[in-house]
Amino acid sequence: MKIDMSISGLKQAYLEGSLTPAKLLASIREQAVTLSDHNIWIYLLTETEHQPYLDALATKDPATTPLWGVPFAIKDNIDLAGVATTNGCDAFAYTPAESSQVVQQLIDAGAIPIGKTNLDQFATGLNGTRSPHGPCHNAFDFDYISGGSSAGSSVSVAKGLATFSLGTDTAGSGRVPACFNNLVGLKPTRGLLSASGLVPACRSLDCISIFALNSDDANSVLACAEGFDSRDGYSRANPFNNQNRQYGRRGGALKIGVLTEEHLQFFGDQAYAATYAATLEKLAATGIELVTIDYTPFNEAALLLYEGPWVTERYLAAQPLIDDNPEAIFPVVREIIAPGGKPPATALFKAQYRLEELKKACHDQLKGLDCLLTPTAGRLFTIAEMLEEPILRNSQLGYYTNYMNLVDMTSVAVPTAFTEAGLPFGITLVGPAFSDRALLSIANRIQQTLPLPQGALDLPQPALSGQAVGNPDSIDVLVCGAHLEGLPLNWQLIERGAVLKQHTQTSAHYLMYALAGGPPFRPGLIRDEAAGVAIEVEIWSMPKSEFGSFVAGIPAPLGIGKVQIADGSWVCGFICEPYGLEGSSDISALGGWRAYMAQR
Amino acid sequence: MKIDMSISGLKQAYLEGSLTPAKLLASIREQAVTLSDHNIWIYLLTETEHQPYLDALATKDPATTPLWGVPFAIKDNIDLAGVATTNGCDAFAYTPAESSQVVQQLIDAGAIPIGKTNLDQFATGLNGTRSPHGPCHNAFDFDYISGGSSAGSSVSVAKGLATFSLGTDTAGSGRVPACFNNLVGLKPTRGLLSASGLVPACRSLDCISIFALNSDDANSVLACAEGFDSRDGYSRANPFNNQNRQYGRRGGALKIGVLTEEHLQFFGDQAYAATYAATLEKLAATGIELVTIDYTPFNEAALLLYEGPWVTERYLAAQPLIDDNPEAIFPVVREIIAPGGKPPATALFKAQYRLEELKKACHDQLKGLDCLLTPTAGRLFTIAEMLEEPILRNSQLGYYTNYMNLVDMTSVAVPTAFTEAGLPFGITLVGPAFSDRALLSIANRIQQTLPLPQGALDLPQPALSGQAVGNPDSIDVLVCGAHLEGLPLNWQLIERGAVLKQHTQTSAHYLMYALAGGPPFRPGLIRDEAAGVAIEVEIWSMPKSEFGSFVAGIPAPLGIGKVQIADGSWVCGFICEPYGLEGSSDISALGGWRAYMAQR
Repeated sequence: MKIDMSISGLKQAYLEGSLTPAKLLASIREQAVTLSDHNIWIYLLTETEHQPYLDALATKDPATTPLWGVPFAIKDNIDLAGVATTNGCDAFAYTPAESSQVVQQLIDAGAIPIGKTNLDQFATGLNGTRSPHGPCHNAFDFDYISGGSSAGSSVSVAKGLATFSLGTDTAGSGRVPACFNNLVGLKPTRGLLSASGLVPACRSLDCISIFALNSDDANSVLACAEGFDSRDGYSRANPFNNQNRQYGRRGGALKIGVLTEEHLQFFGDQAYAATYAATLEKLAATGIELVTIDYTPFNEAALLLYEGPWVTERYLAAQPLIDDNPEAIFPVVREIIAPGGKPPATALFKAQYRLEELKKACHDQLKGLDCLLTPTAGRLFTIAEMLEEPILRNSQLGYYTNYMNLVDMTSVAVPTAFTEAGLPFGITLVGPAFSDRALLSIANRIQQTLPLPQGALDLPQPALSGQAVGNPDSIDVLVCGAHLEGLPLNWQLIERGAVLKQHTQTSAHYLMYALAGGPPFRPGLIRDEAAGVAIEVEIWSMPKSEFGSFVAGIPAPLGIGKVQIADGSWVCGFICEPYGLEGSSDISALGGWRAYMAQR
Repeated sequence: MKIDMSISGLKQAYLEGSLTPAKLLASIREQAVTLSDHNIWIYLLTETEHQPYLDALATKDPATTPLWGVPFAIKDNIDLAGVATTNGCDAFAYTPAESSQVVQQLIDAGAIPIGKTNLDQFATGLNGTRSPHGPCHNAFDFDYISGGSSAGSSVSVAKGLATFSLGTDTAGSGRVPACFNNLVGLKPTRGLLSASGLVPACRSLDCISIFALNSDDANSVLACAEGFDSRDGYSRANPFNNQNRQYGRRGGALKIGVLTEEHLQFFGDQAYAATYAATLEKLAATGIELVTIDYTPFNEAALLLYEGPWVTERYLAAQPLIDDNPEAIFPVVREIIAPGGKPPATALFKAQYRLEELKKACHDQLKGLDCLLTPTAGRLFTIAEMLEEPILRNSQLGYYTNYMNLVDMTSVAVPTAFTEAGLPFGITLVGPAFSDRALLSIANRIQQTLPLPQGALDLPQPALSGQAVGNPDSIDVLVCGAHLEGLPLNWQLIERGAVLKQHTQTSAHYLMYALAGGPPFRPGLIRDEAAGVAIEVEIWSMPKSEFGSFVAGIPAPLGIGKVQIADGSWVCGFICEPYGLEGSSDISALGGWRAYMAQR
């Protein structure tokens, strides 16, 4: 029997009793053995080691424990208490007493670690072949690379050995392997997930990343994994959505930036070029507006990562090993890292100055767009091709990814198609810091438009949420008049980053009046427990930080109070002062504003 | 006749016709000659050069031009079109075709440049003696240092040759000279004022700063000088006040952090030690709560500035001169800058990592406080003392200032007292980035509690605004019930950083009802043009970003709409739905909620 490994699939199986966490873990351990030639794992937990996690689950309520019994894999540069962290290098290894902050949060949320996964050593690489444990093999075709450096983390999920996994992403390590293995890869905003207990690659840029079967799962894991951590110098509190305000747009279809022909690079991979073109065509056909942007500053920022002084961070991360015992390091990794000790501080400051300018130039390109969209990688190489030209081809893999953390953007890799040869392809959505959930919402929409199976499991995705991903810093706002979708004031919601959450009705206790005056014509919603009826309304989810300016812009006699909806709950919504009803007419019988405007 | 040089003083004199900008400029140019032994200016504009500015004023309405006819001085590392920028070094000089962004904004706002001021060369120093133009002399005692590096900028304002001036502040250059010359010195949040057209000292840390006679003037200048500039890589858009939310407190008196005895340093200046103690005593007597904090992380961050790799930025700023023609540089400045070429990038990354940790530790110390308060400087040296030990004593001057930009905090130097010998002393208020206006509000309060004359002018300050400094990103909120000052729900305003702006009444068109139910007991404010009366209310100014969560927390039948106040304007305020009046009683005759609660 095939197991639906998505979070909702497991939840349902546990609920029905067709599966238990213990059975699932046993099955995973067994399958892992049959897949051992893929070189996915550096360490796999034993039945004995799993028992304490199962015991802990027994004390938790599945209904309120968001990841109850959900198995996950951990890249071997992230600490799991009691298990060695090797970073792909035995001479580097140590055994931490505590789990990293993010792993601990996930365990607290009910998730169960399966093991530590293979990686490009020191997280230096985007291909998955730079490991003394052997190259990690693609989940779809054994001859192809898995992508890296989060190699095993991606293949473990694609092959059904975990529901999700943690990778890390400094240059693209959380996105490239997602593309090559038909997964969603979320590279969160820098600092949104704590780096406490993560071995640094470039400490100022590193992010723990999330591989999942679909965008809903990525969002659920994000909610459990994120959070400010004052022990991590690079941790950042989410300042809500303010930064995104400048990208606010006034209504209409999604508007997404894409690269010009001149800047697209497929490095000879005709299949990827064709699949990318087909993806764009399908997205455009669904009404998404695609506009070209200038990739020049992104390109310049990308080059800084390996050709500039940031390699110095990798050198620092490999100290003292690289000084004392360099031959313990995988040769190609050593070759890349070793020169990092040389640059002077003058070069670093100069590069940082230039980077600040490039950041501004890159963010300028996002203005007026919902996000940017690029191929995640330009070419999928075979392992043989990769080993032939290990440095050049690795840099080609980073063409669309290297700039991301330097310019402080966030991104989600989304699978969109297979090539004719049956190899996975995907695109990456890019937005400013802290737009993670906005991107996941768009990813959700794309996954519903272009449905693909779960990883390499040959199983369909579960029904996706189909509505905007919730943001804990949002407020639900009930609108009932000119702010309804498509009506004249709706842009006031859109420009504040609000998303339509629900079409519903008020509880059956309201009257609607058409107020005197206008245009704009406006309704007044009046609670009347005795004579009231149910009125058609919409619930929009708006960033809390934007809600104040929205409220301040509402003219008398209207205001924002609490309105009861059909399910009995109360939400923020439009109310009307008593004096405002003078000269108005009761239109409740029409059931709502749209009906009134249609017959007006 | 003495001229009240404050902005409000000049405005009034212009309005009355007792002064014109042309007369004022003539008087300033004349006085500048008599003060030439103070070495304030590197270049003073001539009558001919002033004429175009006067001509431009003639086309502008004084009522709507915020700095109409207000003279200002410019530190000679900030560009003024057509006048050489020397940075205190003739070999470095160039003549810019355009003014710096900030200077241009001020000129556009009606301000008139007087000249370019003397400075510690390359803005490297906190004392004002490191200049080939001679040491700048203190405005109160010719034997004492002015402080620096914004030396002439401070003395020009203290001596009445300008109403305000621009300095720069990397390590304390905008605060130390304010302290030594009885001025307010605002070191704004990094990136809040554009650095386009500023010669860098440490480009990643530099801020243009403002010297003014009082906090109201500093605020008025700030409003004209601030703004995002995409040409400046380090420019930052003000993300409202979100970051400050974590410092939000629940009501009560101001709570200010101060240093323990162990961390206070006066370097042998008994007069300063005594004056500082007296200042704290007076502030405590006004009801301000003073609590000690741990200065250790601030100290460690401060040491990074000159003992760590940030000197490399100064070296870069002095290139190519320091390589090609080092003897053109003032000896002590050269001695400090020259080693900056040496550190490796490894040292810089390590220092940056440590700095990120220290930032978090420093911000932790601010939690629960309105701000931190320290002496601005521990000792005021004579020029002779300074020249004796130019490097050690300079580092002593930075003891309370060096950390500020490294840990991304903002600060205002406020004069609070004179020593027995008649020398100025002041304290510095410190808060997180973007709390500039909150600090100016506290400075305003301190200046009213501890009134001192204007600079060295022997004139009293004008009446200060006496109310919270306006923030363009705030919303005025009318409250009329339990949110009034001192009543049970007032903390909901305080914790959001709201400040009381005005006691007033509604227009005479409102009825107030005591709603059924409670506690909390709640009023309903109902507009009734015919039968209404004026009701006692308060207007609070709340950060826009916080207003949404405030609105969302208001339970039915109340909400936020628009309410008309006594002056006829409409503001956001509490409204009540019609159904909420069931079972209520009309209390309008009492005139307001306080009166009702008193007799209840």
